[in-house]
Amino acid sequence: MGWHKGYVDGSRPDIRVPVRRVHLTNGHDVTLYDTSGPYTDPQIDTDVRRGLAPLRQNWIIERGDTEEYTGRELRPEDDGLKHTSPRGGLRNLDAVFPGRPRQPRRGREGAGPEGKRASVSQLAYAKRGEITPEMEYVAVREKCSPGFVRDEIAAGRAVLPANVNHPEIEPMIIGKNFLVKVNANIGNSAVTSSIEEEVEKMTWATRWGADTVMDLSTGRNIHTTREWVLRNSPVPIGTVPLYQALEKVDGKAEELSWEVYKDTVIEQCEQGVDYMTVHAGVLLRYVPLTARRKTGIVSRGGSIMAAWCLAHHQESFLYTHFAELCDILRTYDVTFSLGDGLRPGSIADANDEAQMAELDTLGELNRVAKAHDVQTMIEGPGHVPMHKIKENVDRQQEVCEEAPFYTLGPLTTDIAPAYDHITSGIGAAMIGWWGTAMLCYVTPKEHLGLPDRDDVKTGVITYKIAAHAADLAKGHPGAQDWDDALSDARFEFRWEDQFNLALDPDTARSFHDATLPAEPAKTAHFCSMCGPKFCSMKISRSITEQFGSDQDGTLSEEEVRAGMLAKSEEFAAAGNKVYLPMAD
Amino acid sequence: MGWHKGYVDGSRPDIRVPVRRVHLTNGHDVTLYDTSGPYTDPQIDTDVRRGLAPLRQNWIIERGDTEEYTGRELRPEDDGLKHTSPRGGLRNLDAVFPGRPRQPRRGREGAGPEGKRASVSQLAYAKRGEITPEMEYVAVREKCSPGFVRDEIAAGRAVLPANVNHPEIEPMIIGKNFLVKVNANIGNSAVTSSIEEEVEKMTWATRWGADTVMDLSTGRNIHTTREWVLRNSPVPIGTVPLYQALEKVDGKAEELSWEVYKDTVIEQCEQGVDYMTVHAGVLLRYVPLTARRKTGIVSRGGSIMAAWCLAHHQESFLYTHFAELCDILRTYDVTFSLGDGLRPGSIADANDEAQMAELDTLGELNRVAKAHDVQTMIEGPGHVPMHKIKENVDRQQEVCEEAPFYTLGPLTTDIAPAYDHITSGIGAAMIGWWGTAMLCYVTPKEHLGLPDRDDVKTGVITYKIAAHAADLAKGHPGAQDWDDALSDARFEFRWEDQFNLALDPDTARSFHDATLPAEPAKTAHFCSMCGPKFCSMKISRSITEQFGSDQDGTLSEEEVRAGMLAKSEEFAAAGNKVYLPMAD
Repeated sequence: MGWHKGYVDGSRPDIRVPVRRVHLTNGHDVTLYDTSGPYTDPQIDTDVRRGLAPLRQNWIIERGDTEEYTGRELRPEDDGLKHTSPRGGLRNLDAVFPGRPRQPRRGREGAGPEGKRASVSQLAYAKRGEITPEMEYVAVREKCSPGFVRDEIAAGRAVLPANVNHPEIEPMIIGKNFLVKVNANIGNSAVTSSIEEEVEKMTWATRWGADTVMDLSTGRNIHTTREWVLRNSPVPIGTVPLYQALEKVDGKAEELSWEVYKDTVIEQCEQGVDYMTVHAGVLLRYVPLTARRKTGIVSRGGSIMAAWCLAHHQESFLYTHFAELCDILRTYDVTFSLGDGLRPGSIADANDEAQMAELDTLGELNRVAKAHDVQTMIEGPGHVPMHKIKENVDRQQEVCEEAPFYTLGPLTTDIAPAYDHITSGIGAAMIGWWGTAMLCYVTPKEHLGLPDRDDVKTGVITYKIAAHAADLAKGHPGAQDWDDALSDARFEFRWEDQFNLALDPDTARSFHDATLPAEPAKTAHFCSMCGPKFCSMKISRSITEQFGSDQDGTLSEEEVRAGMLAKSEEFAAAGNKVYLPMAD
Repeated sequence: MGWHKGYVDGSRPDIRVPVRRVHLTNGHDVTLYDTSGPYTDPQIDTDVRRGLAPLRQNWIIERGDTEEYTGRELRPEDDGLKHTSPRGGLRNLDAVFPGRPRQPRRGREGAGPEGKRASVSQLAYAKRGEITPEMEYVAVREKCSPGFVRDEIAAGRAVLPANVNHPEIEPMIIGKNFLVKVNANIGNSAVTSSIEEEVEKMTWATRWGADTVMDLSTGRNIHTTREWVLRNSPVPIGTVPLYQALEKVDGKAEELSWEVYKDTVIEQCEQGVDYMTVHAGVLLRYVPLTARRKTGIVSRGGSIMAAWCLAHHQESFLYTHFAELCDILRTYDVTFSLGDGLRPGSIADANDEAQMAELDTLGELNRVAKAHDVQTMIEGPGHVPMHKIKENVDRQQEVCEEAPFYTLGPLTTDIAPAYDHITSGIGAAMIGWWGTAMLCYVTPKEHLGLPDRDDVKTGVITYKIAAHAADLAKGHPGAQDWDDALSDARFEFRWEDQFNLALDPDTARSFHDATLPAEPAKTAHFCSMCGPKFCSMKISRSITEQFGSDQDGTLSEEEVRAGMLAKSEEFAAAGNKVYLPMAD
């Protein structure tokens, strides 16, 4: 095998940051960012029924600002079983996960602002100037200083999603001054997949490079699926609590309430969800702005909230209870992903009034969240033609005080269903270049069906390409090293190195035509032939053809001619080869 | 079937421009640009052994400026048979194609400048203010005026590749003020494919939207393969004559000469090649500039010419004989595609001195070609990170007086072999937006092996996405109609219309999960519910929550509350649905 899992040590023994070390055939190593978790470490015996080791447990405990408590009682409807459970009542939900539910943890009572519970968010620590082990871990991962990580978080320019109840994660950071990140969506639905399949999809997505995973499950076993995903996930997990809340009211948007929603949020906070999409910017007065759109409201959360607002003709309960929501999230360190419920669903609707009105509200909510110590990122579109993409980032960065932007694509045309990983990969690369911090992948099945394992892989790879292309375009320190290593291998015909350095070594290897002869390593030897000075500076004098020469030299015509002849003979003697085998 | 081949008539009966007419289930039609040729017209009986009808034959003859002549004698080495033909001598080359070789045609003697042969290029006609049937055909296709087409060609801002010996083509135009075009490369090699396969690849590529095809065949049967491709191609065919010339000297670059090259160019002019890549900008003094590159010279033509220059230590014969070459091409109307032999082959080498030096020379050659009535486009890179892409177009447009730019990708990162259709699709979309006229596709097999049928399709579809995304971003008139039609179909759950409008209906249909219930067509009815004025302007007064309201209304608090309640009841009465079934 041409690579192995390695670790880079931090300042304390329990900070060991995983990397992928590719061993080149020329004796060099290339170290790549690694999201694949303990699964790719042959030293670690993983078992999905046991879950991953709680890497951060001690860090959380030693801070002394959290306390365990008897969590919310689990109920059958948490798994969508209200009406259909054959036992008709309480299911044995502590079988949700072996040994669960454990006692959840939250900010200690009285240790927070105004005698309330402690804010245990990385933002709260950063504001106080503290560098947590999570921040140091991230600094090692991103090859920057821990102080820089802290300052970016304190400024609200980056988030480090890390619920105190998800100690299994390997900390990562999302912000425009760090590597561009990729999110992969998974999620079961009643008919199409099992819990095991979702866990498998999550590990599969992280194996190919997903930095975070959103569990968008609906239907049955939603709580249990999430528990299994969380306990086995080395990356932060995001959710849209509204989806589960809607299940609890049998899919009737008008029956939603702040109470049902809050209950669901707490349920998910206790499980360990790291970030939550909250569509609090869909205000009643914005809904009519979408009426003349080509594709109306395409965000599921957006249309649920629009339906609720219309049904009650009241302002969104997410908006009116936003401060209260902040007070919950800050005690678990759950990060907001403020949803763009009014994002455009077609080229025609891009950057319209509804979208921009909502963005302004997200800016307002971002300020509230920051004041409440809640880490916050902002979701963005959607379907946007290339010339309208930059306005999205620029405006978001201005309105939201540089809070991390997290976009879905955007898709740059509507005409290619079955290829929307590509229509959106184009937009994703560009919006990443211009400052978007995380890109939510789109799979080939977008608009058409649910992604399978191959679609997940294709989506992740496409988005890793977009993210890395953005890192290059931003001139992110060290980003080009990877390209350089691969290009060196390509030029020198080190095929195995090319494969091992590729984003997808398996496919690259399988595509390679084994019948092509292996060529020897090569190196250009123009300089050793001619000397660059001689050729580029002097030769032009000898060119007296109709298009004219451009430079005067200091050699005489005859000297040049003689030099040319000598060089010509030299080249012939070396076998008339532009490239020579490398001396190595 | 949801679509059929249609035609739009021009001013004379023999101008009938093919289109794809998609019939929507709502009774409307959408008319799309069609590159697929007579093959998709059930009224036309095509036969690859007979070739396509010579659509342009009368147009060429009626101009009266060409004459038939006894062409160059075909020789075994034209098909690479010099040393291996079992008959050891002249093969029966008039069996190259049934009824061939016909008499080729070229500009009439004495009818051209200074008593030379006539320039029969579309550029020559355009310069004289003439509008040819080809120009009118293109105008219908592009939905613009024939005069505009003429003026763009006359200015050298567009080319209409149309060799007088390739009367079978359906004329098309390449220029930044027209739809962005896509080229697909095909080409046999001794071991991997047959003549029939190449013809099949060509028709396959045009079926999915390739606007031109380059035949990059090497090895055996190169002449015969080209003949079959030309006689059956409805799109312009491009070649790199240097590849065949090299075959004639047994692959030894140093044995190339102007004579061998010229002979090959004439051979291909007589067959009907519409545009030729000529690497005349690879000057001897530029070669050493590539010595410190990460990946040296990656263009095959570039490295052949570099080897020749080094071997002889003389200036490139392509450069020194450029005017003579122009004099040949203008009498057949073969378009130059001035090759970028020094294009970067890695992110590290993008926009370097060698590349830009060559571009300056291409600018010089472009002026020479234009003066000689030869239509000209300029090839571009290659491997370029996003932030360096725009400089490529801007500089090319300046140096080459807005001559059409024709780029390979560019690939925006080197790290994803097996996915270079995507790494390059990103760059292609962007460079198209910024003014590139034609995009040369890259398939998933780039760097790894030879593309098969699936790869050709994936490459073409990816590049059609890039080209269309570019058209949208440029605000090209009418480009968005296609997206709008598809998005309307999507919003109204007209699945069949979505599939038929998709770039790839087959794959979209197959991805669609048949188990998903068909939902009824829907329409937003927020406005009919509330009136946009009421909701967006007045509602805010009733919002007195902590984040404050933003606008004062003219209704009293009580009036608003009563209005809200009424609207709420109205919504409930309509079934609590955000979208209502469409009346239609």
